[in-house]
Amino acid sequence: MDAATARPQLKIRPVILDTGRENMVIISRYSKALRAEVFRGFRRVELRCNGKVMLATLILTDDGLVGVDELGLAEPAFRRFGEPEGTLVTVAPAAPPESLDAVRQKIGGRVLSGADVRAIIGDIACYRYSDMEIAAFLIGSASFMSSDELLALSQAMADAGTRLSWDRPIVVDKHCIGGIPGNRTSMVVVPIVAAHGLTIPKTSSRAITSPAGTADTMEVLARVDLGVDEMKEVVSACDGCLVWGGHVNLSPADDILISVERALSLDTREQMVASIMSKKIAAGSTHLLIDLPVGPAAKLTNGAEALRLRKLFEFVGDRFGIAVEVIMTDGRQPIGYGIGPVLEAQDVMAVLANDPAAPADLREKSLRLAAHLLEYDPKLRGGSGYARARHLLESGAALKSMQMIIDAQGPSGSRTDLGRLTADIPAARTGVVESIDCLRLNRLARSAGAPIDKGAGIKVFKKIGDQVEQGEPLYRIHACDSPEFDLALAGAKANAGYAVGPRAGGASS
Amino acid sequence: MDAATARPQLKIRPVILDTGRENMVIISRYSKALRAEVFRGFRRVELRCNGKVMLATLILTDDGLVGVDELGLAEPAFRRFGEPEGTLVTVAPAAPPESLDAVRQKIGGRVLSGADVRAIIGDIACYRYSDMEIAAFLIGSASFMSSDELLALSQAMADAGTRLSWDRPIVVDKHCIGGIPGNRTSMVVVPIVAAHGLTIPKTSSRAITSPAGTADTMEVLARVDLGVDEMKEVVSACDGCLVWGGHVNLSPADDILISVERALSLDTREQMVASIMSKKIAAGSTHLLIDLPVGPAAKLTNGAEALRLRKLFEFVGDRFGIAVEVIMTDGRQPIGYGIGPVLEAQDVMAVLANDPAAPADLREKSLRLAAHLLEYDPKLRGGSGYARARHLLESGAALKSMQMIIDAQGPSGSRTDLGRLTADIPAARTGVVESIDCLRLNRLARSAGAPIDKGAGIKVFKKIGDQVEQGEPLYRIHACDSPEFDLALAGAKANAGYAVGPRAGGASS
Repeated sequence: MDAATARPQLKIRPVILDTGRENMVIISRYSKALRAEVFRGFRRVELRCNGKVMLATLILTDDGLVGVDELGLAEPAFRRFGEPEGTLVTVAPAAPPESLDAVRQKIGGRVLSGADVRAIIGDIACYRYSDMEIAAFLIGSASFMSSDELLALSQAMADAGTRLSWDRPIVVDKHCIGGIPGNRTSMVVVPIVAAHGLTIPKTSSRAITSPAGTADTMEVLARVDLGVDEMKEVVSACDGCLVWGGHVNLSPADDILISVERALSLDTREQMVASIMSKKIAAGSTHLLIDLPVGPAAKLTNGAEALRLRKLFEFVGDRFGIAVEVIMTDGRQPIGYGIGPVLEAQDVMAVLANDPAAPADLREKSLRLAAHLLEYDPKLRGGSGYARARHLLESGAALKSMQMIIDAQGPSGSRTDLGRLTADIPAARTGVVESIDCLRLNRLARSAGAPIDKGAGIKVFKKIGDQVEQGEPLYRIHACDSPEFDLALAGAKANAGYAVGPRAGGASS
Repeated sequence: MDAATARPQLKIRPVILDTGRENMVIISRYSKALRAEVFRGFRRVELRCNGKVMLATLILTDDGLVGVDELGLAEPAFRRFGEPEGTLVTVAPAAPPESLDAVRQKIGGRVLSGADVRAIIGDIACYRYSDMEIAAFLIGSASFMSSDELLALSQAMADAGTRLSWDRPIVVDKHCIGGIPGNRTSMVVVPIVAAHGLTIPKTSSRAITSPAGTADTMEVLARVDLGVDEMKEVVSACDGCLVWGGHVNLSPADDILISVERALSLDTREQMVASIMSKKIAAGSTHLLIDLPVGPAAKLTNGAEALRLRKLFEFVGDRFGIAVEVIMTDGRQPIGYGIGPVLEAQDVMAVLANDPAAPADLREKSLRLAAHLLEYDPKLRGGSGYARARHLLESGAALKSMQMIIDAQGPSGSRTDLGRLTADIPAARTGVVESIDCLRLNRLARSAGAPIDKGAGIKVFKKIGDQVEQGEPLYRIHACDSPEFDLALAGAKANAGYAVGPRAGGASS
């Protein structure tokens, strides 16, 4: 006999609360169906109706927020359950997902089988885990993950979402592990590579803790929230695209895991590799270039760390038949002048238009990355990738390719004007710029309103090695509204993020 | 400049949602103070007002549940913040508690210092950790905890709540790690020990996943939700008490940790020892007897496990100057006849009244435990504890002591009648009872309504080794309401929890 049959049913009703990853439901303490006290100590319940089962975390309420014969479903839970308001459901204390046994074994030091990992990722992708349970899996795997576990995790995450396939022998991709302000190389590299005729269906993320992700910056120029079919049309017409990954549903379990890792500031090499590679496997990439910036305020602070990470990427790529190349790049300072969507988009378009005032570092880094990708073309002679990339850029072919992509993706309706509230942050002393704190500039640009205000951010005037006079501007803050402007300005006054000194030594400015 | 000063303020308002351990606040997606999108990816915010700071998890809402100039505080958060409705507060993205750095170090394999452990427990006790963050600490410590970490954890947990002190040289206590149905020895032991004149201020828990905790069963006879001062008065008058620990606030961090451990079904020896010992340190115990039931469906399934646990209890007791004695007891089957508050209270009172029909196993086990405790009295000759305990019981002194305690604690107003819906569960075959599944009986008693319905539960007629005829009742189910009765009956029919067979062999009944 099913335990649920003895319970009266409740009418479901959406409650407009955005509870994120986690399914949450609300029940009256006086509900006729569940004597709420039965749940003392229980926080997880199971909803059943028409053969559907959903797990959710329970919140009790005393007042009229939900009636005694109702079950309130917070927004995400209501959407995921997919039944109309008023549907009758039974609710019972939930048995935890079976795959949690494997999580507990992992915590206890056991190595998981491929089947265990698949079950765990499947349950996470279907929102059957609470936030706590997801954290348990991540932390249990943080201290040790075997090679087989890493492969199983990459595969399971790729399998849990959309799998793209392209009717082309070579599908190239690039990925940067992030952390460097202004590093919008994808928006230069994709048009160069596409102009050559190689296929590069690029999906990017939006900023979460940074002032801009590639998707935010691209959105200044074009719509980025394309679905799979739209994305395929753009790639079919242009050989490349620059879209937001969020609508394409590649490796959805990864998005869930990342959001919990971030909340806990967990940072594990294996999980990073599984995360990135699962998306690339799902995206149907055959050739992949990974950019690992190394610098004192970058995610990787030394070459040894970067090398270990490179080996992991190569290992997983090898097993999944993806040709992976990993390069280490200079992560000591921002790339380009702009930090924030509109400012970065200006940098990108200046490079593509061969504007003499375009940032040389963004141009050079993009050419270097594009060179590697172009050499995946078997028709291109070894060593000629850079010259080919430069030709495609200087001839205007890359700019034309970018304009085709922009037209194909369509207008975003995003504002493209720069924040009109500005302030220049001056050097406190005369000397040479010795270091720039990337984390600090990211935080200030975010305080100024980026990426929500596309026009907010920071325009950098001075880079490492530049001579500055006392009072000369190091960078300019742009903001759209006063509270953000005040916040960023106060922040920059407290700590500008620049160290200026004589060549030897170095006092803070 | 304080980042918060640039933000408009919001009026706080209670929202009647019980979110348990975790502080949760609700804000409109259109709030004028926080552009909610700024929090994309952020789930933790910081409330500030009058020098108070509270961390909370953020939920966004679209509709009128909270206005754009309001901040909804779920019940527990509102109570903990302690400011009146309408108070203006600033809200900003929260920096995680600093002690989380230590948690991440622990996850990375580092041994924590005493200061680290104190900071973590202090933050947890003050509700500064999200559920996920608490899980991170527990899982990070699950694989390895050093002796020093175990001591620091026990100490920090004890220090985080009420510390009781008794103006008496000997304060005895007993504790059972639980899992055995009907095992209400404390309610016999306390009156025996108090009748002798030793001090035994017993706090107990309510059932969480079992059909009755000692506090639930005692509540059939007397009020148990006493505060510290009331508890001291009772002990002063009676030398002992039997109260619920929930109002006394001993080791509140432990209650929080336990609730997360349970949600994740984590079960770590070190955490169990720290949990129990922190409460005993805080309770001011000088002598402690620990009961470790061992049996196939008990928490400890073999003597080796029990021995390892004993060593840990002795080690911590030693360091904190508590004389700890650990005994292993028979955990193969229920103790007494009753499972459920009223039924268990009947067993206890029958033993205290020297009723010939009282369950012999409960009487014997209680006498054995009381004997150990009584021998903590230096005036008692070694080996005479059992005889003394039996004398106190048989003379009626223990019953008189129990009646004094009941009178001193006062009436609870609880119902004391047995569930009037009953069904006897018969043996499916003739033979001998070979084993009883304690977990199964616990679950059936809980299905029948215990501990919410005090009169619901199971009355056991047959124990291991008893001869039964086919059709003869093994036990009786008591319930107060039909849905629970039907559920328990159906459950017992599916699996009665008894194995009956000839002495050798053993088919399931």
